[in-house]
Amino acid sequence: MSEMNTLNIGHEVEQFFSKVIDTLHRLERQNLIRLTDILLKAYRNERTVFVFGNGGSASTASHLCGDFIKGISFDLDKRFKAVCLNDNIPALMAIANDISYDDIFVEQLKNYLKKDDVVIGISCSGNSNNVIKALEYANKTGAVTVAFCGFNGGRIKDLTHLAIHADINDMEVSEDIHLIVAHCLKQILIKILRS
Amino acid sequence: MSEMNTLNIGHEVEQFFSKVIDTLHRLERQNLIRLTDILLKAYRNERTVFVFGNGGSASTASHLCGDFIKGISFDLDKRFKAVCLNDNIPALMAIANDISYDDIFVEQLKNYLKKDDVVIGISCSGNSNNVIKALEYANKTGAVTVAFCGFNGGRIKDLTHLAIHADINDMEVSEDIHLIVAHCLKQILIKILRS
Amino acid sequence: MSEMNTLNIGHEVEQFFSKVIDTLHRLERQNLIRLTDILLKAYRNERTVFVFGNGGSASTASHLCGDFIKGISFDLDKRFKAVCLNDNIPALMAIANDISYDDIFVEQLKNYLKKDDVVIGISCSGNSNNVIKALEYANKTGAVTVAFCGFNGGRIKDLTHLAIHADINDMEVSEDIHLIVAHCLKQILIKILRS
Amino acid sequence: MSEMNTLNIGHEVEQFFSKVIDTLHRLERQNLIRLTDILLKAYRNERTVFVFGNGGSASTASHLCGDFIKGISFDLDKRFKAVCLNDNIPALMAIANDISYDDIFVEQLKNYLKKDDVVIGISCSGNSNNVIKALEYANKTGAVTVAFCGFNGGRIKDLTHLAIHADINDMEVSEDIHLIVAHCLKQILIKILRS
Repeated sequence: MSEMNTLNIGHEVEQFFSKVIDTLHRLERQNLIRLTDILLKAYRNERTVFVFGNGGSASTASHLCGDFIKGISFDLDKRFKAVCLNDNIPALMAIANDISYDDIFVEQLKNYLKKDDVVIGISCSGNSNNVIKALEYANKTGAVTVAFCGFNGGRIKDLTHLAIHADINDMEVSEDIHLIVAHCLKQILIKILRS
Repeated sequence: MSEMNTLNIGHEVEQFFSKVIDTLHRLERQNLIRLTDILLKAYRNERTVFVFGNGGSASTASHLCGDFIKGISFDLDKRFKAVCLNDNIPALMAIANDISYDDIFVEQLKNYLKKDDVVIGISCSGNSNNVIKALEYANKTGAVTVAFCGFNGGRIKDLTHLAIHADINDMEVSEDIHLIVAHCLKQILIKILRS
Repeated sequence: MSEMNTLNIGHEVEQFFSKVIDTLHRLERQNLIRLTDILLKAYRNERTVFVFGNGGSASTASHLCGDFIKGISFDLDKRFKAVCLNDNIPALMAIANDISYDDIFVEQLKNYLKKDDVVIGISCSGNSNNVIKALEYANKTGAVTVAFCGFNGGRIKDLTHLAIHADINDMEVSEDIHLIVAHCLKQILIKILRS
Repeated sequence: MSEMNTLNIGHEVEQFFSKVIDTLHRLERQNLIRLTDILLKAYRNERTVFVFGNGGSASTASHLCGDFIKGISFDLDKRFKAVCLNDNIPALMAIANDISYDDIFVEQLKNYLKKDDVVIGISCSGNSNNVIKALEYANKTGAVTVAFCGFNGGRIKDLTHLAIHADINDMEVSEDIHLIVAHCLKQILIKILRS
């Protein structure tokens, strides 16, 4: 690798980190307080939190669900109930293959979802059809719907009760902000529930 | 590959198929009727079915869960609720790493399990510690516990309300019988619920 | 549950078991010998085995891959290389969301596949588009292609070098036969490689 | 939720975001340039990148692998080869159940690993036994080893050729930094390889 390339990479690193930090600075704080409130209410009323996404957001969804099941709940007498809808591959791929990829999340919600459950759909563009379809169904069922989105927020920003919006035209930075928010909520919930 | 090896392989195939068929012939039919009854009761009372296992039995558990979520439930107004406890890798591996591999299933049951839910533990030896621990907890919680086991049934055969026992000292044949039983139940439940 | 229902369930169980046993009897033995030969050749030449499927066949694929990685290889100095293309959810769901669900397997083969690798596509109907597309690509790349199919074999039966065909119009029985065949091969390979 | 709680949550959010930003500022930039170099060399020599972790780091590993397979590689004639060792659940849980949870990664490396491959172990504490064991094996095999760690770096910081060290005593912030670094590398590799 040439010296020049080395310098360029250093510059790219700074630029990427700046995008993350700037987006974090712009993030609407009040929405994190609202989300904490939604999640605590679900916890107290023994409702379930559903979460799902595509691509990298599938791993964010699985990670967030795992933090609810173990990280936040461990040591508590009463624990969170959370289900990630991209974790059961046979169901997901049976729905995609036999019905449509757009139905992979909504079909599973039809099995589980009850009024007052919390449904978190993650889509950086805000426009993934399978996430939209599931959130629309959740609204009709009387669940509390939350969007984790990026770019201009897309359709899920408008159709949900609350949107965590990473305000940047960048897929990777949006995913980073979503994980940071999930972790921030994790630490806040741990402090509240173990105090 | 020599002709002789070819002949040996043919013989091995016949022997393996015979083991499957013989074990299927020996399987206690009455227990499948009992399991159908348990699952229908759970369905009617809106209880959840939990299922889990190690190794190949992890894939059986995930497959069975997927069949409950999609295959059996599709086209029904009211659907099965099923959760496979080896599907959320972050939770499973956080528990294994921070607490112990023996606790990966029981810790998740502490989040979800309610009285009268159905808990299906799959262990061919019947002696996997994490499966035993989860089934013992489920018994104490007032759940209906079911063992899918092989070999001599091991400890889970005795500690559960019902055991589907593949009576053979063979890991692979036991796994085959478990999948056949799960699929047989699937077709029966579909006929009953769609008639 | 009424007595009559109990009797019916018993009858259904016998019918299902008979379908499995009859299909197993009809299975072309010679193809298992050929598949053993293909897999041994791949092993000796350090080629990789790729496997994938949808729905329940996704769990068969993951199970078969796990058996190659651990069950067959454990205790061997030289081990099998196997990759299941429905295991990495972020890649799978990024391809499905950004390109198309039909491309989830072929896109991954473009990363990994080399001449003389073995590609096993599992589709009970034999007609899943994503499985067809991946097998066609594998043929062009000079890989050895294998179909695990059911029903009338569908398109993958004809486009592959070898087909393990469960000759029955039944999804669940086809899946059972595929797992039995995978396990039969596992035991044969263990005997050959550890002798 | 009372006004006072609301204020506290707002304060917690700022504190958490500050931890992320401060840790990002402290991150050793030169190591990202070195890692880019390692990955490009692996790509040019057609080596494979292996990645693995526990808990939340399992999702980071799966995410990073998915980005190599699809995000970075899509549109390239020659693509990255990457395998995440916490994706195949049957293999992982067979090793954990039959051998030990500490061996889940090293046993799989024995199947795949070749000289000059890249092995990325993710452990925030730096002290997860299964990650240490796999990295030590990779060193002996002549692979290039990389640690993604947090806290004081733990044992994996010292035993690897390169460490991406999130210098903070905080599990969640460490995980955030790891994902940000993985995404930063993704964008850099895309720019280099598509230019």
